[in-house]
Amino acid sequence: MKSNARESIVNAAVYLFNHKGFKGTSVRDISEKARSNAANISYYFGNKEGLLEHCFTSYYEGYLREMEKGISYLEDGAVRCLKKTLEKIMYYQFENIQLTRMIVREMSLDSQMVREVMSTYGMKEKYYFQQIFEHGFNNGEFRNDAAGYYLLQLKGLLTMPFLNTHYLTEVLYLIPQEQYFADKYLQELYSWVDGRMSSQQNRDQVLTALS
Amino acid sequence: MKSNARESIVNAAVYLFNHKGFKGTSVRDISEKARSNAANISYYFGNKEGLLEHCFTSYYEGYLREMEKGISYLEDGAVRCLKKTLEKIMYYQFENIQLTRMIVREMSLDSQMVREVMSTYGMKEKYYFQQIFEHGFNNGEFRNDAAGYYLLQLKGLLTMPFLNTHYLTEVLYLIPQEQYFADKYLQELYSWVDGRMSSQQNRDQVLTALS
Repeated sequence: MKSNARESIVNAAVYLFNHKGFKGTSVRDISEKARSNAANISYYFGNKEGLLEHCFTSYYEGYLREMEKGISYLEDGAVRCLKKTLEKIMYYQFENIQLTRMIVREMSLDSQMVREVMSTYGMKEKYYFQQIFEHGFNNGEFRNDAAGYYLLQLKGLLTMPFLNTHYLTEVLYLIPQEQYFADKYLQELYSWVDGRMSSQQNRDQVLTALS
Repeated sequence: MKSNARESIVNAAVYLFNHKGFKGTSVRDISEKARSNAANISYYFGNKEGLLEHCFTSYYEGYLREMEKGISYLEDGAVRCLKKTLEKIMYYQFENIQLTRMIVREMSLDSQMVREVMSTYGMKEKYYFQQIFEHGFNNGEFRNDAAGYYLLQLKGLLTMPFLNTHYLTEVLYLIPQEQYFADKYLQELYSWVDGRMSSQQNRDQVLTALS
């Protein structure tokens, strides 16, 4: 019963932060939407900031767990490991689509909390990706020309469907909530890995496979 | 004198919307920051929403003018035209970096204004890109496998540095305000066009040029 109340509060907060923004949402809005007492919010999370912090923490801990599952494929080669990692991340994000939307948008703001999240979770995410990249640079699977920019593009591609949901639906007529979209988008990420990151030798194999 | 007051109001609003969010900014904040009378804001823009609308309109009109300059290269082939268009867009965005940051973040919200902007400017942008894509599909320069997904990725790559400025600086140690970054990032976009969109025949030429 108690964990239900906690969960309802989190779900209500994610919904409201997505629709009205963090600053536009009051503790009263959340307690009304969650059909919970405002005192519960302060008991579980302290205040609205504490609730947001909880969302960040639970999102990134789940995210990094999925990355770790992907990293475990490193022995199978960097390309396969990177693709597995992207798969784990994308499906995690699609399974938590509302939370992901809220987090990626909040991350675009400049706040103390965002800085703290970046210095812990952001650095850890970067470290994991770099392990995969280094492996691929060392064994010749990846072109070693722009590691920082690879990560930049990857992050852009990973967050795009969640930051721009309305653009997807209203302009491109794509439906990010559908399994079909998730699968197809993941294929696009794989193509990016093959087309952009893979070394020439590797790309020759891809081109041959395509022809 | 009058146009200066108007410009100060817009600059102050863009700054505050970026730092405190649209909802977290009051008309009084804007008038104080712009050292202007609140009555001026209502005279020029009606209200805070009118000011935001003005920002959207002036951003997208400039954006589409730059796209049109790029489109004029269509006779030189789709790859060259797309690259020119990306160049025009990127430099426009880097020249208006604060405004761009504000717009791309606001576009991730769900509001009446965002819907209106998408149904006019978003559709026009899509139409321009499609003209380039169609040209490339028809003359064999582009692989015709996923037009909607190309646009999705392109938009993700075009907006990434502005949506995630703090990630760039704090995690990747890249400085998006610098000319060097703009130039290097544009090269990454070109590589994406060559690696992902170009047809096999075209990619063979690129691979030969790279070797």
